[in-house]
Amino acid sequence: MDTVNSIKNDSYTEVMLKRQSVRQFQPDVKIPREELMELLKEATTSPSACNLQSWHFVVCDDEAGKQKAHSLVMPFNFPQTDTCSAIVFVLGDTQSHEKYRDVWNKMCADGRITPEKRDEVFQTFLPLYEHADREFLVKDSTIDASMVSMQFLLAARAHGYEANPLAGYNAAKIATTFGLDEKRYVPVMAIAIGKPAEKPIDSIRYDVADLTDFA
Amino acid sequence: MDTVNSIKNDSYTEVMLKRQSVRQFQPDVKIPREELMELLKEATTSPSACNLQSWHFVVCDDEAGKQKAHSLVMPFNFPQTDTCSAIVFVLGDTQSHEKYRDVWNKMCADGRITPEKRDEVFQTFLPLYEHADREFLVKDSTIDASMVSMQFLLAARAHGYEANPLAGYNAAKIATTFGLDEKRYVPVMAIAIGKPAEKPIDSIRYDVADLTDFA
Repeated sequence: MDTVNSIKNDSYTEVMLKRQSVRQFQPDVKIPREELMELLKEATTSPSACNLQSWHFVVCDDEAGKQKAHSLVMPFNFPQTDTCSAIVFVLGDTQSHEKYRDVWNKMCADGRITPEKRDEVFQTFLPLYEHADREFLVKDSTIDASMVSMQFLLAARAHGYEANPLAGYNAAKIATTFGLDEKRYVPVMAIAIGKPAEKPIDSIRYDVADLTDFA
Repeated sequence: MDTVNSIKNDSYTEVMLKRQSVRQFQPDVKIPREELMELLKEATTSPSACNLQSWHFVVCDDEAGKQKAHSLVMPFNFPQTDTCSAIVFVLGDTQSHEKYRDVWNKMCADGRITPEKRDEVFQTFLPLYEHADREFLVKDSTIDASMVSMQFLLAARAHGYEANPLAGYNAAKIATTFGLDEKRYVPVMAIAIGKPAEKPIDSIRYDVADLTDFA
């Protein structure tokens, strides 16, 4: 699938500045798996610490998957979970550094970086992760997974859908429900996506001046 | 300042899908504070758990601020810190719920939601935060701060700048260096912004199919 051709709305202003959370979707709308993968591909252009890409996705887009999602979310999130086209659980991968050498070796083989730059990366950053404590790995992968989630929300709008990020679910059961190693994968967010069936709440923000210091 | 008029590049494809991290900036470029605030305003259209907006910004854009930033980052981040127009430290606010009633009362006063909806929000979510342990509050504010950071990176490009998110800094000294309560504010990321002086590394991503399960 060509990236640009599947984009319905190519405006930054429309996609980012006018995004709102939608919690009621048209229940009969299906999103093809090819397009869901395209949305994830666009989302994963987000940066990550040392390009570790410490994220993992579980997509619930059929009856069986939706039932699992329903069993995990809190009741106040039933409306979006039960009407969306798909709900994507985004998890942080605390062991992404185990395949770290692969991505940089490939970049080197492709001529994007020199062997010296690759070795510098390995020597500078790899020990930080290999010797890191769990708190460090959880924080890093939570940040990566949050950033890719933000871009997924925007990709949804660019493709003509709306979305809702939600945190109200039984985090302790996510990994085991989906057959994932619960030590390795930390739940960060779930995102319901579909065609809107409501006008969302026009939420407000604090004045940024009240949240900003100049050093 | 009108939001749309200051945007130089209004394409989702250009802004999001072609973003790369830039680590060398043109050192003489200044970004007006009005525009930095506009960038932050655009970034804060990001969602947050219960709309708590658990983020806080410290902007270093003059000699004194840049020196503080330099004293905090690790040496491998000196190039972008020392050449950028500004570096923004993004922190999570673990006590954002203390002003939680204000934002929903204002939405109610503005007629955006009913008093019943406001009271439902207060009764459902406020106790979760008022009785939350520190780990919960840190995680929630880290996610919020990461999402707003992602949007700041995109806002930078929309305004004709480039940026680099960085995690290599002395996290334990951030709050005290900037006179902030270190219990309340948790460092999440720093972002250098400016006009690029290099062609960035053309980094690669894993195939999303390898990172995605269908439930």
